[in-house]
Amino acid sequence: MSIEELDSLIKKWLYEIKEYLAANKDKVLEVEQKTADNDLVTEMDKFIEERLVSNIREHFPEDKIVGEEGFGDEISSLEGRVWIIDPIDGTLNFVKQQENFAVMLALYDDGIGQLAYVFDVTDNKLYSAIKNKGVSCNGKQLKKPQDLTLSEGLIASSSALMIKNNTSGLKAIAESSLGVRMLGSAGLETLEVVKGNVVAYLASNLKPWDIAPGIVFMKELGLTATDFNGNSLDLLSNNNLLLSTNKAHGEIVDLLKEI
Amino acid sequence: MSIEELDSLIKKWLYEIKEYLAANKDKVLEVEQKTADNDLVTEMDKFIEERLVSNIREHFPEDKIVGEEGFGDEISSLEGRVWIIDPIDGTLNFVKQQENFAVMLALYDDGIGQLAYVFDVTDNKLYSAIKNKGVSCNGKQLKKPQDLTLSEGLIASSSALMIKNNTSGLKAIAESSLGVRMLGSAGLETLEVVKGNVVAYLASNLKPWDIAPGIVFMKELGLTATDFNGNSLDLLSNNNLLLSTNKAHGEIVDLLKEI
Repeated sequence: MSIEELDSLIKKWLYEIKEYLAANKDKVLEVEQKTADNDLVTEMDKFIEERLVSNIREHFPEDKIVGEEGFGDEISSLEGRVWIIDPIDGTLNFVKQQENFAVMLALYDDGIGQLAYVFDVTDNKLYSAIKNKGVSCNGKQLKKPQDLTLSEGLIASSSALMIKNNTSGLKAIAESSLGVRMLGSAGLETLEVVKGNVVAYLASNLKPWDIAPGIVFMKELGLTATDFNGNSLDLLSNNNLLLSTNKAHGEIVDLLKEI
Repeated sequence: MSIEELDSLIKKWLYEIKEYLAANKDKVLEVEQKTADNDLVTEMDKFIEERLVSNIREHFPEDKIVGEEGFGDEISSLEGRVWIIDPIDGTLNFVKQQENFAVMLALYDDGIGQLAYVFDVTDNKLYSAIKNKGVSCNGKQLKKPQDLTLSEGLIASSSALMIKNNTSGLKAIAESSLGVRMLGSAGLETLEVVKGNVVAYLASNLKPWDIAPGIVFMKELGLTATDFNGNSLDLLSNNNLLLSTNKAHGEIVDLLKEI
């Protein structure tokens, strides 16, 4: 199967999930707390992950899978083909708003991103990337965002980082920028960087499935994806994530040293 | 002209503006700073306000008009019919993102809201209210949001308030809620309360045109619109705005006393 054929197959899976979500949007969901009041999982998160895992297993039984809800494998290395799934990124938005969430999927091979998907399902916008072929939205190729500095742009961040842990370094980043936006979904905030709507997205303690598609998108668009120290991200553990334009990257890393 | 006929006429004006924006979306805009780097005005703000003012003057030459960009009148009382216009709410988003902004309009009569409009133009969602007839989106009547407490919901706020002026009272509100969302447009954040996506929206130092439609929407949906002390809002001056569910209102006003 060529990479383009695989891309088409994955999109078919994702559109099936969109149909399922639309058909079940008025269903009262069973919601469980994971670690806290604002860390939730629904039967829909589980359904979507199971469905994607079963699709992958059917076609690629040798591949490894990492999923937020645990239907995949426990992995200790990124050798070979590894699929990374976030069935619903922004579950709190999904529960409280029935919008502003994303279905996310990425395929890595020996640690190198091959394919990436962030699907804003309620808005019907599917962003996808194929290695060395750029990023598209609903099949339309995106341009590289302008390389703006921090003071020339808005930034996106998370409630947990910017408000609960408001330190002088973070405040300085916010104040050096034109303003802060918070959407409550790492996937949708990654898309804000992809579209050039913000010059950076920063969030602390994200899981591999929160960041896997973003790394591929940034690479394809000539943007930067690192941790808060400017080092490479690690898909086997939690990460403080900084996605940004090249110009804003150094400025933000310098200011983050003050945290 | 009946209120329903007037509502139809206003919607026709607003859709004409949408068409104009769509036809000119790739135009390079002349952007001017007003008071600061993040307080901008474009020729499009001016064009839209002029167009609305001219439509209103043509049909209702006796009415008074208050507009953000100054094409209306200087008023010192709310007697009679007063139109309040925000041609582009979220101008910074408009300039930096070409989305996530709103065209807003409201009609008051002797200080009582009669009609209100918040138009998310790029998303093609026109929210409108007629006094005593509820709120609709694209003609579909909205349900009243659930009366949730602060701890049961998300809140929306502004960068300026939550990050630059982060005080213990604001931090307590954020921490008592499930999380904070920031969209950068008072109009779109008002819609988050209207939809029940958040239990409250709070922002400091807003102008009459930022808050005029929201007051009407809240009244129609049985929600609360006050200043930070729980007092009535004043359409002749700047206000600290709190839109919220009834349950969250008292909780937030109590916490705001600590600012």
